[in-house]
Amino acid sequence: MNNYQEILQALHKKYSSLKAGELASYIPELLNVDPELFSLAITTVDGKSFVAGNIDKEFSLQSTSKPFVYGMALMDHGREYVHKRVGVEPSGEAFNSIIELEKETHRPFNPMVNSGAIAIANMIKDKGGAKKLERVLKLFENLCGRSLSINEEIFLSEKKTAHRNRAIAHLLRHFDVIDDDIEECLDLYFKQCSIMVNVQDLSQMAASLANNGVNPLSNKEIFSAHFTTDIISLIFTCGMYDSTGLWAYQVGIPAKSGVSGAILGIIPGKMGIAMYSPRIDSHGHSVRAIAAFRELSTSLKLNIFT
Amino acid sequence: MNNYQEILQALHKKYSSLKAGELASYIPELLNVDPELFSLAITTVDGKSFVAGNIDKEFSLQSTSKPFVYGMALMDHGREYVHKRVGVEPSGEAFNSIIELEKETHRPFNPMVNSGAIAIANMIKDKGGAKKLERVLKLFENLCGRSLSINEEIFLSEKKTAHRNRAIAHLLRHFDVIDDDIEECLDLYFKQCSIMVNVQDLSQMAASLANNGVNPLSNKEIFSAHFTTDIISLIFTCGMYDSTGLWAYQVGIPAKSGVSGAILGIIPGKMGIAMYSPRIDSHGHSVRAIAAFRELSTSLKLNIFT
Amino acid sequence: MNNYQEILQALHKKYSSLKAGELASYIPELLNVDPELFSLAITTVDGKSFVAGNIDKEFSLQSTSKPFVYGMALMDHGREYVHKRVGVEPSGEAFNSIIELEKETHRPFNPMVNSGAIAIANMIKDKGGAKKLERVLKLFENLCGRSLSINEEIFLSEKKTAHRNRAIAHLLRHFDVIDDDIEECLDLYFKQCSIMVNVQDLSQMAASLANNGVNPLSNKEIFSAHFTTDIISLIFTCGMYDSTGLWAYQVGIPAKSGVSGAILGIIPGKMGIAMYSPRIDSHGHSVRAIAAFRELSTSLKLNIFT
Amino acid sequence: MNNYQEILQALHKKYSSLKAGELASYIPELLNVDPELFSLAITTVDGKSFVAGNIDKEFSLQSTSKPFVYGMALMDHGREYVHKRVGVEPSGEAFNSIIELEKETHRPFNPMVNSGAIAIANMIKDKGGAKKLERVLKLFENLCGRSLSINEEIFLSEKKTAHRNRAIAHLLRHFDVIDDDIEECLDLYFKQCSIMVNVQDLSQMAASLANNGVNPLSNKEIFSAHFTTDIISLIFTCGMYDSTGLWAYQVGIPAKSGVSGAILGIIPGKMGIAMYSPRIDSHGHSVRAIAAFRELSTSLKLNIFT
Repeated sequence: MNNYQEILQALHKKYSSLKAGELASYIPELLNVDPELFSLAITTVDGKSFVAGNIDKEFSLQSTSKPFVYGMALMDHGREYVHKRVGVEPSGEAFNSIIELEKETHRPFNPMVNSGAIAIANMIKDKGGAKKLERVLKLFENLCGRSLSINEEIFLSEKKTAHRNRAIAHLLRHFDVIDDDIEECLDLYFKQCSIMVNVQDLSQMAASLANNGVNPLSNKEIFSAHFTTDIISLIFTCGMYDSTGLWAYQVGIPAKSGVSGAILGIIPGKMGIAMYSPRIDSHGHSVRAIAAFRELSTSLKLNIFT
Repeated sequence: MNNYQEILQALHKKYSSLKAGELASYIPELLNVDPELFSLAITTVDGKSFVAGNIDKEFSLQSTSKPFVYGMALMDHGREYVHKRVGVEPSGEAFNSIIELEKETHRPFNPMVNSGAIAIANMIKDKGGAKKLERVLKLFENLCGRSLSINEEIFLSEKKTAHRNRAIAHLLRHFDVIDDDIEECLDLYFKQCSIMVNVQDLSQMAASLANNGVNPLSNKEIFSAHFTTDIISLIFTCGMYDSTGLWAYQVGIPAKSGVSGAILGIIPGKMGIAMYSPRIDSHGHSVRAIAAFRELSTSLKLNIFT
Repeated sequence: MNNYQEILQALHKKYSSLKAGELASYIPELLNVDPELFSLAITTVDGKSFVAGNIDKEFSLQSTSKPFVYGMALMDHGREYVHKRVGVEPSGEAFNSIIELEKETHRPFNPMVNSGAIAIANMIKDKGGAKKLERVLKLFENLCGRSLSINEEIFLSEKKTAHRNRAIAHLLRHFDVIDDDIEECLDLYFKQCSIMVNVQDLSQMAASLANNGVNPLSNKEIFSAHFTTDIISLIFTCGMYDSTGLWAYQVGIPAKSGVSGAILGIIPGKMGIAMYSPRIDSHGHSVRAIAAFRELSTSLKLNIFT
Repeated sequence: MNNYQEILQALHKKYSSLKAGELASYIPELLNVDPELFSLAITTVDGKSFVAGNIDKEFSLQSTSKPFVYGMALMDHGREYVHKRVGVEPSGEAFNSIIELEKETHRPFNPMVNSGAIAIANMIKDKGGAKKLERVLKLFENLCGRSLSINEEIFLSEKKTAHRNRAIAHLLRHFDVIDDDIEECLDLYFKQCSIMVNVQDLSQMAASLANNGVNPLSNKEIFSAHFTTDIISLIFTCGMYDSTGLWAYQVGIPAKSGVSGAILGIIPGKMGIAMYSPRIDSHGHSVRAIAAFRELSTSLKLNIFT
């Protein structure tokens, strides 16, 4: 097991020299970050964590939050309710495509695209936005086993500039996918994206999915096992936007990326993997994390079809 | 292991009463078939086969041929050559969408859609159509461990009515994805679709993929192990057309369907599964096979993310 | 000339029996109208008006307001400024298509679709929404030669339910076509749509365009002659949404319809024509007005290409 | 009237210095032409012709043939038959868009796009391709008042390389818009495009449309007056592909362009205009002809909405 430590350090060393990619620019606050940050972590299902790089630096979850809030919606409402409103098909669209709705049903394609995640945020049960946020924050605290905070600068930056997400929300309202509290729903979505974690936290979140929904460090059940299968399945088929097919082909690990530069990966029954480095490619994925994940998959034979 | 036999017989009994769906109508010859046919088979990687239903009835491969000819193209040319011409992304399009080309590159989305399979057929190495067909037929004979034949009626029926596939081929020529021998290429594609197998054959073909490319009955290597991973990966992300996401979510088995009513499934390292019943749904999948695969996946816990 | 009176009365009589179509339902307040209303008017460029039917009943301008506010934007900013932000091409899209932006430039296709009209409303010069509205209202008062009012119920009804238009506005903001005052811009747009006129007013508005931009009753110049050509040109190529081609083919008169059931037509150098009857077809055009315009065009040989 | 002569000569002189644009490259044979050729002509409805430039040089009709063969189909079958198979709406698509079929009906958008023109060619009455071609050639000879020939090099060049048009034809067959004689139909279409005329011929063709379907030099009726209105209407709304709106806005003359570098324009009741210069812009229109038409429209006040 000590092996994981060495592997992560070797990957850190090897890919630190990779300078390609750009900081995400559509959320202005994400530009205020050191582009050289790079950290990696593995948490196994028997509760051991291994880390390398800038492991104390926190970053915002962004889209890596989506599968977990989707899991909460499944726990709140069950499969049928959720998927009557949000589909399960890959969209074939880029992460910044204008409209992310199925042509005939006008549902979002899946919970991993922005439209789907906004519709999911609208499903979280509780009275009012503050209570709902409390539940969502508590979800991630249970996944990470510690107190977390929301980065207000990132939240406000996203809230102010998210014209496209606001357009999507109004379209969802037009098609009766969400209800009238559009701003409350968007605020909740922007805040879940602005929750700050470090790379070990993210690997622990992934490890909870790898461990049938049970946090392997606290042994607390976060999601039922059958919903955990649903979450991992959608992560695999829809998690990497329009390069999902290429990722499945080249890496073969269920994975979700966020524009902050984070990628989490799940090896069911074995481990959660997380990497963070803020320079992203044109698909919105961390350049260093893509490269290191690909090598890790090959060297540890993690491709699910190998 | 004897268990498999009983499970298949139980599924056969249970789903024989399912009468939904229609015979495929776009290839006239496919209408000349008994709609009540229903057969199931499993072949394990240690070379045992289990069958139930009308196991002697043959049917045409149709799109279940695509992953194997794709594998032959990989063996002939390697990954780079093949995927310069055909992508690896799910298309989000129905199996009968008019145009199946990526918007920017004008490549087919993947080898599992018709456009991709036509482009793959164009890659098969050898001099002239007859030689190429010989190689393709030999491929399937090696996969099935016996002599196979082409159903000329089905071939001619498809050749005569395949105006859309012919349109696709001319577009592929327009975008320089394929070369000038359009009719030769289409004939090869129509003939690979018209190869006749029974359900045990199909399960053996799937078992070869589950067994790292080696036919578990003959122990002959058909595909290199790393290409086998590629084939299974593309089957999982693209094999069920626009219901690929739903299939992954509900069944979670890499699978490929054909409009003749066949579906094959691969459990890597364990077994190949095949089912056949000719009534298909609006997505082009056998209604009975869909239902039986879903139950089989649940009862044997075959979902790859469980 | 007395002839026009008789023609309009004959059309009124003939098409009053036409009961096809439905009241517009997407603006709830538009359902509160007598579906049997039917009125017709002609105003010639030498300042004579002829009317038939329920000529005292007022209706909201809706999309028939678009060409005139577009004209005001041309007067305020000139061709270059306006058409850098809004195109001049027909969209080939229905009036309720989700997104009305050109694929490459992300501009609205033309000033006659909702997205274009919202962008045009954003261009109206003056300080603050109240002043802008005052100018827009004054424009229509000059066109009609009398005081006009805004129907607050229709305005509020539209404001409350216009989720799609709100989505469009946020997308326009996303692509920097409009600036930050989204709600002010939408309010102005909804209010211009809620201005109440009768059928004689509308024919006078059309006659001002037919008369090189000069109101033929007041002799006041509303638009410069060269901008009037621009307005009529865009009305002809884009005024009837996705049935613009059919209208040009069957009627051949530059015309603009509104979902309240109004259609205005322009015979350059001769007359303005207006018809109103609230039951609309699936394209959003008044069923009776369509039929009566078609007959009028044939009988008076008004087709511009005859 | 002598004035026209001077105007054309002035335009020729002024725009000969315009060197922008490229020779059409998708039909190889079109590259074998002197890019400096430039000719202009006007034929009035009282039968006078005025010319300037290289008036003896012939060029192939290409898409300028489409409105006339459409007129022949109207004469052969009437409006209903023709427009059940081909629409009348502008497509909003570029002249080289992959697929030119309406989304719901799968008809070609209109007779001016390639798909529509191929469907029209399929409607020409007579026994066999040779007889049909004879009729089509006779049509153009009647329009030009002299014997014409087909350029075999251009025909063969187009036939050999027209993979996209062939794809379109097979799609039209798939949707039952055309019948089985695909190659005969394409040959007829390619041959109508390869008919050679000079600029005076083309102006005379346009003048026949301006003159209610009667050739103003021979006084022979080519098209009935009401079909002539149909033809001009479709030329105006669909003749300049995806820059039809801009052309209507800037020039305001019903016009049809061809990739050989020809543009014809119709001033109903007055004259036909033709210009030829082979360098074309990205929309497929002759650069010099665009510029000269625009100036001519302004100086002679030919905009139909002025």
